[in-house]
Amino acid sequence: MGAVKTKRMPRAVREQQMLDAAVRTFGRRGYMAASMDEIAELAGVSKPLVYLYLNSKEDLFTACIRREAHALTAAVRSGVQPDTPADRQLWDGLRAFFTHTAQHPDGWAVLHLQARTHGDAFAAEVTAMREEIVAFVTQLILAAARAAHRDPDFPEHEIAGLAEALVGAAESLADWANATPDVTARQAAATLMNFAWAGLGNLMNSDPWIPPVS
Amino acid sequence: MGAVKTKRMPRAVREQQMLDAAVRTFGRRGYMAASMDEIAELAGVSKPLVYLYLNSKEDLFTACIRREAHALTAAVRSGVQPDTPADRQLWDGLRAFFTHTAQHPDGWAVLHLQARTHGDAFAAEVTAMREEIVAFVTQLILAAARAAHRDPDFPEHEIAGLAEALVGAAESLADWANATPDVTARQAAATLMNFAWAGLGNLMNSDPWIPPVS
Repeated sequence: MGAVKTKRMPRAVREQQMLDAAVRTFGRRGYMAASMDEIAELAGVSKPLVYLYLNSKEDLFTACIRREAHALTAAVRSGVQPDTPADRQLWDGLRAFFTHTAQHPDGWAVLHLQARTHGDAFAAEVTAMREEIVAFVTQLILAAARAAHRDPDFPEHEIAGLAEALVGAAESLADWANATPDVTARQAAATLMNFAWAGLGNLMNSDPWIPPVS
Repeated sequence: MGAVKTKRMPRAVREQQMLDAAVRTFGRRGYMAASMDEIAELAGVSKPLVYLYLNSKEDLFTACIRREAHALTAAVRSGVQPDTPADRQLWDGLRAFFTHTAQHPDGWAVLHLQARTHGDAFAAEVTAMREEIVAFVTQLILAAARAAHRDPDFPEHEIAGLAEALVGAAESLADWANATPDVTARQAAATLMNFAWAGLGNLMNSDPWIPPVS
């Protein structure tokens, strides 16, 4: 234990290098096909050291999910300034989201493709992150609706589902942007703003789309 | 072979019963946890007969994905009437989509959760279906944009990503509607129309949301 204590910084650094290698390997190969040999080699360490630090392939994958989920939510939160208009907050949040997923395509693949597919424990990690983002977007939309209606008690159920729609659209566009050459994060964010904001904006002004009777 | 020929209808009927049982079991338990014993019991047949007809768990799962994917795309296509206004086509398509996913929650779980998570072969089946739906929605949006701009050559890249956003939002809302008590298919469709149409509608009228300079 004494030896570990004096090596705390190197261990933390090496752990991040292992996680970097693991995210890259899991993101590109998938969870099943990724080998601990490849991850160790990419990290420049021995395989026993990976097991010593991260315990097992399952624990390593869980650590990857947690790190990437935290990084993504932190990027979105820090991109948004609370006291700006609602459309500005949404625009800033979307740009932060698409910038992060573009800069970390392997991390995004781990979160959106790999983690949901290999068992309940991994899926639960991602579900928690997604719920946090949906709750964040819900509060943003709710604050905008309450300001637009000048009603601090405007009920949340009036905007139920809108955050789910927005988050689902963002996930789909992040996959599309990462798979499509020459689509920038700014373009992806602008596409979603154009798709979503005018619609949300009309809702804020109590001008919904009216379904036909039949 | 003669014996099989004379039993053709019963075999087809029994195969559908096996697929019904398999979709239900895969959708609720997941691919890994689903057992062929349970599927055979639920279908009211012997396990050897399931293997005789569907060959393997992998082939059975593939058959489930194909059947459910075909049923979903057929439901959406048949819900839309080509010569109606664009917002009516979108509304009809969304209602058909959410009605189908609400009535076939296990099939939707197979397509949206299970199939994407257990290997490239299964994922490719669902990717093909998703691409078909994205292409269908792209043509719908493109036709609307060309009509609105009175320009039959209005370029497709101008609406790039919008269909991805719409399909991603619909997928997310289908999960949400199926997991949320008392949300009807009509409500889910109306939520997405309200979210999306006014935004798309403004785009059709060349009235996009303008990003701030910074």
